[in-house]
Amino acid sequence: MDPKKNIDKSALHEQEGVESQKTLNTRSANTIKAKRKKQPSVNDLVSGIVYGDITSLSRAITLIESTNSTHSKKANEIINKCLPYANKSVRIGITGVPGVGKSTFIEAFGIHLTSIEKKVAVLAVDPSSTLSKGSILGDKTRMEDLVKDKNAFIRPSPSGDSLGGVARKTRETIILCEAASFDTIIIETVGVGQSETAVHSMVDFFLLLKLAGAGDELQGIKRGIIEMADAIVINKADGDNIKAAKSAKIEFNRALHLYPSKTSNWSPKVLLCSALKQEGISDVWKLITDYLETTKANSYFDDNRNNQNRFWLLQTIEDRLKSNFYNSEKIKSELKNQMALIEAGKTTPFAAADYLLNL
Amino acid sequence: MDPKKNIDKSALHEQEGVESQKTLNTRSANTIKAKRKKQPSVNDLVSGIVYGDITSLSRAITLIESTNSTHSKKANEIINKCLPYANKSVRIGITGVPGVGKSTFIEAFGIHLTSIEKKVAVLAVDPSSTLSKGSILGDKTRMEDLVKDKNAFIRPSPSGDSLGGVARKTRETIILCEAASFDTIIIETVGVGQSETAVHSMVDFFLLLKLAGAGDELQGIKRGIIEMADAIVINKADGDNIKAAKSAKIEFNRALHLYPSKTSNWSPKVLLCSALKQEGISDVWKLITDYLETTKANSYFDDNRNNQNRFWLLQTIEDRLKSNFYNSEKIKSELKNQMALIEAGKTTPFAAADYLLNL
Repeated sequence: MDPKKNIDKSALHEQEGVESQKTLNTRSANTIKAKRKKQPSVNDLVSGIVYGDITSLSRAITLIESTNSTHSKKANEIINKCLPYANKSVRIGITGVPGVGKSTFIEAFGIHLTSIEKKVAVLAVDPSSTLSKGSILGDKTRMEDLVKDKNAFIRPSPSGDSLGGVARKTRETIILCEAASFDTIIIETVGVGQSETAVHSMVDFFLLLKLAGAGDELQGIKRGIIEMADAIVINKADGDNIKAAKSAKIEFNRALHLYPSKTSNWSPKVLLCSALKQEGISDVWKLITDYLETTKANSYFDDNRNNQNRFWLLQTIEDRLKSNFYNSEKIKSELKNQMALIEAGKTTPFAAADYLLNL
Repeated sequence: MDPKKNIDKSALHEQEGVESQKTLNTRSANTIKAKRKKQPSVNDLVSGIVYGDITSLSRAITLIESTNSTHSKKANEIINKCLPYANKSVRIGITGVPGVGKSTFIEAFGIHLTSIEKKVAVLAVDPSSTLSKGSILGDKTRMEDLVKDKNAFIRPSPSGDSLGGVARKTRETIILCEAASFDTIIIETVGVGQSETAVHSMVDFFLLLKLAGAGDELQGIKRGIIEMADAIVINKADGDNIKAAKSAKIEFNRALHLYPSKTSNWSPKVLLCSALKQEGISDVWKLITDYLETTKANSYFDDNRNNQNRFWLLQTIEDRLKSNFYNSEKIKSELKNQMALIEAGKTTPFAAADYLLNL
């Protein structure tokens, strides 16, 4: 297999697809037919994925990401046919603020994993990409060694209207990557708030990457994110930084003890590493295998996946109920009218809600 | 007016009402007619409320709290007719853990307010009451002086299926109290989590009552609740406790500085008081009037009420959309089937959601 193939060319394919829709009337029928012939069938893509063909995988992910309804239908068929091959990987979430060295860490970690015969897929959930159409992982040159690794697959963040939509695409992409025999899925995120929660709800292990900084170590860290972490890894623990990293480790350990123990029965650990010098990377994997052993033994691993599925089921239903309601043109204009009546003291929020729901 | 009337007898009235429904067939027509004649009309109740008659107010609140649909219809008419007289009070939320002296504080505070010619209504939102049918404020003997005060009205927590339902009843009760010329509405709550948020979303000023304790003052306090507070009042600052209370004040002031400044432009303050000895109570009211001056001048007061109305409108719509969906018998059984298919790896949460929404 040509390692170059691992570089994701699907964005290109998608652009072609979109173009062929837009210019349908201005192109000759022959050109369109020729292009159509090149589109692989659902069965072609599924066999390609199961065989481990990266091009098929990329094309199928592009269908998942498309907003075209024909593409979505095809994507759903592919996902369904891939389901029997899925569910067999370890899913690891990695988060940390910009500058913490996420790309360098993921590259070093990914290369360690492929060196011990793992197949690694790296995906991203990026809240900012819903506006900017992809920012993290966008610059693949930051992971140039991992990109060339034939047992690694890197896919930038899908763009979308909402975090819910992006999360759905990522969850469906995980299924295809698993069907393509990727046994370790890394999901990167950076964000303020909700994206961490979304990623936490689709992974088995959640890793928070930190730096040893000057001053108050806990300042500015979202409490909820520390609470979700199964491990805190302090990066750039090298050179002059080692002393600060060690005291940060003590401080984080102390902070972790303030939280109630987890239902997984796992006590979160703090580790030091230097992604740049590739030190401490194998310890992170060792920790994750310890975690898997513990949680598979006490059945938390499976319970957690079932709970996550339930969460996504209910979340999707509720998002859709709301969007169906609020996207109705009639509701949009009546909602404004009712708000004006409320502000004028002529109705209550509850009477207004009753009125809108009865429309 | 007989001060005894202020003690809420509406629970009694409600019981009578329910009984007349249940025993409809076994009673003679005459008895029923006689009972019906005693039920005041919507217009009777509205004029009673606007006149300031506590019995009318109590009866109307009982209609709000009833789950009988005829009662609800009547309640909605009354609320609508009271709206022109509403919206003119100051709404104060008071929270604090059990043992902090909330009843003693509210009694002292309420008596201070009536002594300066205010009319005070005390309501409660109690999450535990959805199970136990009313716990806080239930024991009115704890506020025996305020109960006797003819310018005070105390109403225990309504019970309900959900916090949303209880909150709605409380918000509607506020409207009636305002129409009955109560110019200061105190809403008491105790709870872990959501009830504070609900109360915060229906008041102009949110007060957190605390005790000076030994050890780490901030331990065990929900971060979100401190963040919502416009004032922290440290109660029982008397006798041997004064020194501890003073150092708690310093510590809370420091904690408050860690939060970003509020959109109200108000910097939350920490005060000491002894509700038992009635010391520091007038300072609390002085602080609230300062707050009102600031927020009415910068228009936050009105903006906040509009935002609260918008919040309750959307919240009610979304609660109802969800309950309409999940309460359908078909959905209930299909939801179980789909979850089983997901757990067996035969469908995805997203495909299952699509299926359920298309039913």
